[in-house]
Amino acid sequence: MSDPAVVTLLTDFGDADAYVGAMKGVLLGLAPGVRWIDLTHRIPPQDLHAAAYVLESAVGGVPADVVHLVVVDPGVGTPRRAVAVRTPRGRFVAPDNGVLTPVLEEGVEEAVSLPWPPDASATFHGRDVFAPAAARLARGDAMAALGDPVEGDLVRLPEYRARRISGGVAGRVLHVDRFGNAISSIRRDELPEGTLEVEAAGRAVGPLRRTYGDVAVGEALALVGSAGHVEVAVRNGGAAAALGLRSGDGVVVRVREG
Amino acid sequence: MSDPAVVTLLTDFGDADAYVGAMKGVLLGLAPGVRWIDLTHRIPPQDLHAAAYVLESAVGGVPADVVHLVVVDPGVGTPRRAVAVRTPRGRFVAPDNGVLTPVLEEGVEEAVSLPWPPDASATFHGRDVFAPAAARLARGDAMAALGDPVEGDLVRLPEYRARRISGGVAGRVLHVDRFGNAISSIRRDELPEGTLEVEAAGRAVGPLRRTYGDVAVGEALALVGSAGHVEVAVRNGGAAAALGLRSGDGVVVRVREG
Amino acid sequence: MSDPAVVTLLTDFGDADAYVGAMKGVLLGLAPGVRWIDLTHRIPPQDLHAAAYVLESAVGGVPADVVHLVVVDPGVGTPRRAVAVRTPRGRFVAPDNGVLTPVLEEGVEEAVSLPWPPDASATFHGRDVFAPAAARLARGDAMAALGDPVEGDLVRLPEYRARRISGGVAGRVLHVDRFGNAISSIRRDELPEGTLEVEAAGRAVGPLRRTYGDVAVGEALALVGSAGHVEVAVRNGGAAAALGLRSGDGVVVRVREG
Repeated sequence: MSDPAVVTLLTDFGDADAYVGAMKGVLLGLAPGVRWIDLTHRIPPQDLHAAAYVLESAVGGVPADVVHLVVVDPGVGTPRRAVAVRTPRGRFVAPDNGVLTPVLEEGVEEAVSLPWPPDASATFHGRDVFAPAAARLARGDAMAALGDPVEGDLVRLPEYRARRISGGVAGRVLHVDRFGNAISSIRRDELPEGTLEVEAAGRAVGPLRRTYGDVAVGEALALVGSAGHVEVAVRNGGAAAALGLRSGDGVVVRVREG
Repeated sequence: MSDPAVVTLLTDFGDADAYVGAMKGVLLGLAPGVRWIDLTHRIPPQDLHAAAYVLESAVGGVPADVVHLVVVDPGVGTPRRAVAVRTPRGRFVAPDNGVLTPVLEEGVEEAVSLPWPPDASATFHGRDVFAPAAARLARGDAMAALGDPVEGDLVRLPEYRARRISGGVAGRVLHVDRFGNAISSIRRDELPEGTLEVEAAGRAVGPLRRTYGDVAVGEALALVGSAGHVEVAVRNGGAAAALGLRSGDGVVVRVREG
Repeated sequence: MSDPAVVTLLTDFGDADAYVGAMKGVLLGLAPGVRWIDLTHRIPPQDLHAAAYVLESAVGGVPADVVHLVVVDPGVGTPRRAVAVRTPRGRFVAPDNGVLTPVLEEGVEEAVSLPWPPDASATFHGRDVFAPAAARLARGDAMAALGDPVEGDLVRLPEYRARRISGGVAGRVLHVDRFGNAISSIRRDELPEGTLEVEAAGRAVGPLRRTYGDVAVGEALALVGSAGHVEVAVRNGGAAAALGLRSGDGVVVRVREG
């Protein structure tokens, strides 16, 4: 029998409790020998946009035979679907609440709805529903063995992507990272041609730069970050704090006039 | 030779230093190929009640052949025992300071006292005493090879469990989790029959609910959490902050009168 | 083919983003089956002294066949070298900015300069440059296969080590750990003979003690910590907060007069 597939874990469970450990116990119980990558467990509680962004930024660098277990679930204890989805980038187990938005865009090859086990707890579906499904995929079970095909559309976050506006493109801050960089929904391939100016939360940040070295230490700049999104940073500092930027704030990139 | 057993790690060492990494280096050195689950390293410094609770909530979901390495040790540098204990739930290596209280209740099958190595540092027994013992258990050494049988009783935390009071049961907040849920020492199987009302830190929280969906967003509720303990929560919010609850605060569940 | 070597990871990337996960994806892609130890990802952003200390304190306990991947890189986006270095303690992949200071002192057996891949991002060299090099070393590639020999000296931090002064030795706080212990650059083997008094940030801390048990709970003390450095602690408390100590503050150990 071959080794189980690697499982990535992405949650808002934090790392001060045993919630993640309990999920890993389930993985090990059902898929002995399984290995995992913790993407992060510090998604701001119930922040679906941040989780979707972190997932998007991670899947590109991870082999496609990996199983991604995503549990950011504001709806725990209320009716919503649990799903397993296969795309060209990998297999994903998650609540059907929009957190998979960026990977759904890659094309859904198969999607099944996970049944709620009769003995599932009311509050910890990560351990009782999502981890067992990920473990079964990791050990080689077919998607179809996990549940019936999903009926209707999977949920997508309507504001996850930027939109064209006159002379440019408008988006929002999806995530503030460890370094205080405010990462927006605007992607490199959506940028218009020309010399570009960036605005965040209604304030000018300046031209789109290529690298931190283009500005002095302590100066703010906008550049395309490592996952291909426009972000606002301060060289050797934190832009979010310095400029007062928060998740959800508007970001606009416009062609410079004249 | 078979693979080493999985080791879980539970400490208050935090994750900003190399302390945990140094312990894993010891594990790898003595039990090559060993794998581990980090339960958490963010137990509030020296909080034995929180550590005991996190251990209790994790062991249920982890296979019983696992070795649990628990290092929360306010007594480092003072005389106290280091022990290895076998129960029906697994094997445990820890200081004998009460942190194993919930697992000792499962019945102690074997307990040995770990000798202090002559070259142990004065401050880092996790690396010098506890990790080597866990590594030896993981690779298959017998408990008896680690030390002499423990003499006398193992230490238990006297206030870890709730107590019956007139018309109900009284306990304390053991742990505040990542979501701000205040988890009490009162367990499902200790609840009296009838319609139940919950009080925390002397204030009424309302009836015991079944799930978050039973109240409106932002409203406080009490329910039985995923590890079977009564906890006080706020739907999509943090109860500990909203209600001013802290570790050690009193929690009471009473049958509603009339 | 034998298993890949274990890789340790030490960064200032934090654990709230997917940066570390993306690096692990690269490791798994290039060295299937590789295992890792996270030393810490919570080095204060761009703090080379703290990173060098954490590295020094960890490598002693880790087998010498391990590959250490260190990414604390204030210079990302500016010209500086990326290197792989072999010493008697192991192999190290890092920016050439002084973060390897303590391991360079063990003697450099081989050092190569890593080329910048033409498609490297401007901001995430951990994923694009350093992780691939560590993965190649872990799977068994020779150092020489990674790049040309380093020309000239490798960078060292000039203030990482303590210096002799009249009647004692003077250093600085390198790192404040999870428990609030302020760990200095002064090492056990640099201490003068005699009865020693310790000063931190210009204030007397008292004699150098052997263990926490030598003072009352809540009292400050100086002792030699688990990695062999003089540190200032408060028994069952946090010295850094209590005494106002910060990274970079001066620490002096002097022989008591008279």
